[in-house]
Amino acid sequence: MLDDVWLPTLNTHTPQEGFELAVKLSRLAVMVAQSCDDDGQRTRPVQPDEASQLIGAAHVIALNFQTIAAANDWWRHHSH
Amino acid sequence: MLDDVWLPTLNTHTPQEGFELAVKLSRLAVMVAQSCDDDGQRTRPVQPDEASQLIGAAHVIALNFQTIAAANDWWRHHSH
Amino acid sequence: MLDDVWLPTLNTHTPQEGFELAVKLSRLAVMVAQSCDDDGQRTRPVQPDEASQLIGAAHVIALNFQTIAAANDWWRHHSH
Amino acid sequence: MLDDVWLPTLNTHTPQEGFELAVKLSRLAVMVAQSCDDDGQRTRPVQPDEASQLIGAAHVIALNFQTIAAANDWWRHHSH
Amino acid sequence: MLDDVWLPTLNTHTPQEGFELAVKLSRLAVMVAQSCDDDGQRTRPVQPDEASQLIGAAHVIALNFQTIAAANDWWRHHSH
Amino acid sequence: MLDDVWLPTLNTHTPQEGFELAVKLSRLAVMVAQSCDDDGQRTRPVQPDEASQLIGAAHVIALNFQTIAAANDWWRHHSH
Repeated sequence: MLDDVWLPTLNTHTPQEGFELAVKLSRLAVMVAQSCDDDGQRTRPVQPDEASQLIGAAHVIALNFQTIAAANDWWRHHSH
Repeated sequence: MLDDVWLPTLNTHTPQEGFELAVKLSRLAVMVAQSCDDDGQRTRPVQPDEASQLIGAAHVIALNFQTIAAANDWWRHHSH
Repeated sequence: MLDDVWLPTLNTHTPQEGFELAVKLSRLAVMVAQSCDDDGQRTRPVQPDEASQLIGAAHVIALNFQTIAAANDWWRHHSH
Repeated sequence: MLDDVWLPTLNTHTPQEGFELAVKLSRLAVMVAQSCDDDGQRTRPVQPDEASQLIGAAHVIALNFQTIAAANDWWRHHSH
Repeated sequence: MLDDVWLPTLNTHTPQEGFELAVKLSRLAVMVAQSCDDDGQRTRPVQPDEASQLIGAAHVIALNFQTIAAANDWWRHHSH
Repeated sequence: MLDDVWLPTLNTHTPQEGFELAVKLSRLAVMVAQSCDDDGQRTRPVQPDEASQLIGAAHVIALNFQTIAAANDWWRHHSH
């Protein structure tokens, strides 16, 4: 999966698309963290099920969203 | 829900509205984290009930608020 | 409570007032996280009592303080 | 304690003084988080003793240090 | 390992390469945290296996990605 | 230790040196968090040994690295 071009840009047209990209990045990061260094095998997608895990996942999304929002200059020229 | 336009802009008129948007974004992120990748089903809203979870949720809100505040240029032109 | 104007601005005169505003924002965020989505009832204020919770709360305050400090251009024109 | 002027500025002469201010701010935030809203009584200083708590405290210090470093324009004019 | 030049620059050509660098930095930081101060011995690579650890690792990656993204001026001139 | 000049500048020549400074700052912050306020005694260095602690330590390093990277203007003029 990581061999393909999956993140050509951080630019999105709207904050909403930026949020969705943040979700995608966050899920990918969890997958990468899960993968072993040596054999690269990946297991099943992590499904946070406890409140604290869900909040932790939301935290990662929020951080990635901040990065993407900055990359898009906060969509200042796109929003009304 | 994610098919609709629910985040057209990060702009708000006041810091207070920005804070409320941060709360909305944070709740949405928790919901998205909870949703499964494959079937997209969502379960009941997460209700943090322990102090550590509430603090964790407040952390996510604070991070989203920082993003929104930056997007609004910290409401420097709106505040007195 | 959230119906009133409780956050008209992020501007404060001094870093100290900014810190106090960060504490206020952090407490409010914990309260909002605690409130239910549907009935909006709020329970007693959360009182973190373990060291890890206190550190977590301090983390939220630090993040909000960073936001407020940036909003005030780091009080560069007020300090000497 | 909070009635006095304890944070007149975020400016420090050196990164080292900025770090020490970050430690001070972090400790204060833990104390404020510990204080009750209604009676304002403060208990003994929190002493993190487990590794995870110490790391959490270091995290808060790092965040406050980032804020202070930004406030001092990263001490770019003081370093060489 | 730390004696070699392993981080000559934060610049990458694409966000995707930046993400991969963030993953590398995050893994390195975990290794450094694991190493003892005195004898410098390093043990086996840490393999997070619980959901909360994976989310924590994703958080570190997200933070390093933010740093790298800022260092690359958010790849604004490279993306289309 | 804190009486000496141990942090005269945040400037480093390369990102790698910046990363090493971030590690140093993070370890110092853990030590400071461990020290008591009154007697200033410091105990043995904290050695995180669980995955979650190592990830937490990596998080602190990542945050300090972000601060140092910003202080060095992301080493934009040093990298190729």
